[in-house]
Amino acid sequence: MSGQPKRILIVGGVAAGMSCAARLRRLDEHAAIIVVEMGPYVSYANCGLPYALGGVIADESALHVQTVAKLQSWFNLDIRVNTALVRIQRSAKSATVRDLATNVDSVLPYDKLVLAMGNESVVPSSIEGARLAHVHTLQTIPDLQAIEAIMAATTTTTTTTTPCHTAAVIGGGFIGLEAAENLHRRGLAVTIFEYGTHVFPPIDADIAQVLHDELRRNGVRLELDARVTKISARRQTTSDAKTEEEASLSSPPLVFAEGQHEPVPADLVILAVGARARTAIARDSGLAVGETGVTVNDAMQTSDPDIYAVGDMVETPNIVAAGRHMQAALAGPANRQGRLAADHICGHDVRYRGSLGTSVCKVFGLTVGIVGLSCHALDRLGIRHQYVTVHPPQHATYYGGATAMTIKLAFAQPGGRIVGAQLVGQEGVDKRIDVLATAMRAGMTVEDLEHLELGYAPPYGAAKDAVNMAGFVAGNVLRGDVQIVHASDLTANELLHKFQVLDVRSAEEYARGCVKGAVNTPLPELRERLSEVRKDVPVVVYCFVGYRGYVAARILEQNGYDVYNLDGGFKTVTDAGYRALQEHPHGA
Amino acid sequence: MSGQPKRILIVGGVAAGMSCAARLRRLDEHAAIIVVEMGPYVSYANCGLPYALGGVIADESALHVQTVAKLQSWFNLDIRVNTALVRIQRSAKSATVRDLATNVDSVLPYDKLVLAMGNESVVPSSIEGARLAHVHTLQTIPDLQAIEAIMAATTTTTTTTTPCHTAAVIGGGFIGLEAAENLHRRGLAVTIFEYGTHVFPPIDADIAQVLHDELRRNGVRLELDARVTKISARRQTTSDAKTEEEASLSSPPLVFAEGQHEPVPADLVILAVGARARTAIARDSGLAVGETGVTVNDAMQTSDPDIYAVGDMVETPNIVAAGRHMQAALAGPANRQGRLAADHICGHDVRYRGSLGTSVCKVFGLTVGIVGLSCHALDRLGIRHQYVTVHPPQHATYYGGATAMTIKLAFAQPGGRIVGAQLVGQEGVDKRIDVLATAMRAGMTVEDLEHLELGYAPPYGAAKDAVNMAGFVAGNVLRGDVQIVHASDLTANELLHKFQVLDVRSAEEYARGCVKGAVNTPLPELRERLSEVRKDVPVVVYCFVGYRGYVAARILEQNGYDVYNLDGGFKTVTDAGYRALQEHPHGA
Repeated sequence: MSGQPKRILIVGGVAAGMSCAARLRRLDEHAAIIVVEMGPYVSYANCGLPYALGGVIADESALHVQTVAKLQSWFNLDIRVNTALVRIQRSAKSATVRDLATNVDSVLPYDKLVLAMGNESVVPSSIEGARLAHVHTLQTIPDLQAIEAIMAATTTTTTTTTPCHTAAVIGGGFIGLEAAENLHRRGLAVTIFEYGTHVFPPIDADIAQVLHDELRRNGVRLELDARVTKISARRQTTSDAKTEEEASLSSPPLVFAEGQHEPVPADLVILAVGARARTAIARDSGLAVGETGVTVNDAMQTSDPDIYAVGDMVETPNIVAAGRHMQAALAGPANRQGRLAADHICGHDVRYRGSLGTSVCKVFGLTVGIVGLSCHALDRLGIRHQYVTVHPPQHATYYGGATAMTIKLAFAQPGGRIVGAQLVGQEGVDKRIDVLATAMRAGMTVEDLEHLELGYAPPYGAAKDAVNMAGFVAGNVLRGDVQIVHASDLTANELLHKFQVLDVRSAEEYARGCVKGAVNTPLPELRERLSEVRKDVPVVVYCFVGYRGYVAARILEQNGYDVYNLDGGFKTVTDAGYRALQEHPHGA
Repeated sequence: MSGQPKRILIVGGVAAGMSCAARLRRLDEHAAIIVVEMGPYVSYANCGLPYALGGVIADESALHVQTVAKLQSWFNLDIRVNTALVRIQRSAKSATVRDLATNVDSVLPYDKLVLAMGNESVVPSSIEGARLAHVHTLQTIPDLQAIEAIMAATTTTTTTTTPCHTAAVIGGGFIGLEAAENLHRRGLAVTIFEYGTHVFPPIDADIAQVLHDELRRNGVRLELDARVTKISARRQTTSDAKTEEEASLSSPPLVFAEGQHEPVPADLVILAVGARARTAIARDSGLAVGETGVTVNDAMQTSDPDIYAVGDMVETPNIVAAGRHMQAALAGPANRQGRLAADHICGHDVRYRGSLGTSVCKVFGLTVGIVGLSCHALDRLGIRHQYVTVHPPQHATYYGGATAMTIKLAFAQPGGRIVGAQLVGQEGVDKRIDVLATAMRAGMTVEDLEHLELGYAPPYGAAKDAVNMAGFVAGNVLRGDVQIVHASDLTANELLHKFQVLDVRSAEEYARGCVKGAVNTPLPELRERLSEVRKDVPVVVYCFVGYRGYVAARILEQNGYDVYNLDGGFKTVTDAGYRALQEHPHGA
């Protein structure tokens, strides 16, 4: 280090930027550190915004993780809010920033520049009315304040205030789902418009179906496959209306989507259709930019080694996708990247290890999450895999309150390395997501999951934990101990008629609904009734969640049958909504 | 395989034994499998017994995970309950078993013998009265039934029934703690007698102190360092008493311990002083037996390759203790060992990977757990290590209901491999135990914990999860970014006077109590007040949980001071009860 203190300029003062600043100061007491932040606040919890909207977080001030004053006094930082980066003069090693209050530009020299400019919520130009006053994104504290203002007084005429009764959320991703739940909590009638066939796009359709049921059960309207084309303004019908009440109710703003979708009234519209990395200035400065964000090496350096980029604006290797670079846009990786950039600037030997895309989301009474990639995404990337579906309880079934979660575990075939895990359920789901995220970080196979020694006491787990169970089932498939078939394959390829189907549940379970054409042969009777099963036609067996089906498959296989256990059992058929596979045994 | 079906005899039909039997049948439809079980029930959930006692599990029948009839019909097993192993004729490859109802012995030939005989609760001969009618262990369903009977009618004379008001639990381990909580739930006044200085012996005293507080806060009386010598019977004073009421209250049974401990009344006494592997028959048969259980290789074979042993009765390599063989006595390992033995018998290539001793336990409103070894145990085994103590919240602090947990993370120094993690707190503790158990199974270092990408949404975690935080703090120590000192060292070695102590919390926090002799220098003032700190005396800094102390230590170190951050901050000093280190700043 030279005698001159190092000058470090950080652009962006929320997660990645402020993590970087604080770490820099801890490592280098004498550096000159400037943080410029475009917005009025730094280091706030943007992940909490939907919950602040819903009143779960009662006080907006709780979102301010750190104040400017505190950060300055603890870390001796020069923090400049309402200040935006305008351009970078790379050859001069300086950046031009603008005070947004005064519009005055200034030039800041740097030894190292750290870009932590984040994502920008998309406002689609394809939607007419997307910039109307009652339409807003939800990404920043000013966004939250604006939405609160819309809700406080949707339309005020001279004589009446129209209250906010209805809301539309456009986009069924992470933020859309959280916003929908929280607006519902505030008493609004909420509709989600989702462009795709299912909400929470990182997961597969079969898992998302469980979310659809939960959303509808809670009174949220779902418009799927819905391309929103237009948002209308409130019509000013006050003069025509006979009563004030009529005026307030007669002409709410509407949301229109193409095709079969009827217009839906919405006093408030949240745009949650996604976000794009803020790459424009980086690109204009000649820095390498990939498909989804700024290109960085594993020390978080851009193509200019004196310029680092961190957080939502960069793309990093996805561990599962063979190192393919992708935007992660998650707070955990953002914080870690900020910290690593600081370490590298201070001469530490560091390496960012890539992202897994670990995500978890609350959807009313359910928790849903994913680590790695969905089977759909794996297929799209051409990554060969197999998967299993299990429905284990979160803790010992004999201890009250046990409920089944669903784990869909994808693994490389052959080899068994875990490449994706999707989970949904009422309790204990976040725990298993984190266990699987740790296992995947370690490069574990599904057989390694069999050997995990997880904590067991009745309130918390089981002697064979949910994750062990997923490992056992996947391991059996990997080793060829059992052949499986997926309900999706039976539907998609109309394969069902090629099999004889055995339902090995009890007669009572069978009577309540079964797979089309299935013959009921309860497991305890199977050994005696083997002669009823033809050997010249392959057999599909199933039970409710898969275990009895597995036992039956083993009996049949060892008696010379070509047998497949239906993955996830009848529960997956019903949970995932495979209606074409279902019938009532005494109907159809 | 020969044409003759393989004959497999399994001794013990609960966790390990029945896992083995079911797996065997799935792998070999044609084997002749006999399971003998000493007790009247098979495959029951002995881990649920304390909760059945407390009524949390309302119906004892819930504990019967599988019935004999169901197991026989699903798995075609020959199950013989109330049947005990008498001896093994190894050269003849047969075992003699006894029908305990008829006392008739029979000889069963085997190709493979699997011993899954479990543990036996210790009834110490050193305690006078340990076999009185109101004294019982809690290990089996008959034990539960016996205890229920004691509670239903403690003493019935011709005229009166003395109700059960008071209970003593002898032994503060896993079962003792669960029994105490559940008896308390049933309305009994409960005393725990613990031989050692703290309850839950696998953990360190500083963590256990938090449990002591919780137990006392809930009205459980603790007698620590208490060697119970005698349990007295109820004295028959009815004839002397003036009233029936007096008779029932005047002379309860008592529990006596050596030393300072007063006799404690207890209508019911639960013996939970530990359990020993049932090794006698194995030893008599000439099988190798270690200090804590039967010796097995990684295929679960005893010294006789045709005899396997699994579950609580064996000792397996402890992963942390450099492969030293120890009894695990946990349901997870037991089940896994049973399964692996079956795999090996059927010719699969398997390897038991050793145990971590992952444990979790509910203690009223707290969850406590450990993976690997405590610092005390590491010291005893001569395993060099360092540790850090952190108090992170279970989820984002801005989301309601955030509470701090404590993680004490031990790691090899140098190298950083994790060798132990102890956790205690109100929520989210079981999740972090399992994440750490997975990390330890993968052989991770504390630096690997920094890189874990765990699920973050406000209800579930934080951008820097509790486990990441533990990793960051430990990583900083491992890399030498900060020096730390432990409160235990300051007390044990009376080192405090060798340091100048800086409290970098706010004046308000300081005023409520501080470390003896500490000078309050709030972090925001530290840079300006550096001249007040002497350079010729080493400095201890601290804050509430450690973070401000860390920042202060970095500032001081970079200004040329020899500085140590107090591990875990003032919270550890108070939580762990280091009274000698505390004072009131305007007192003392």
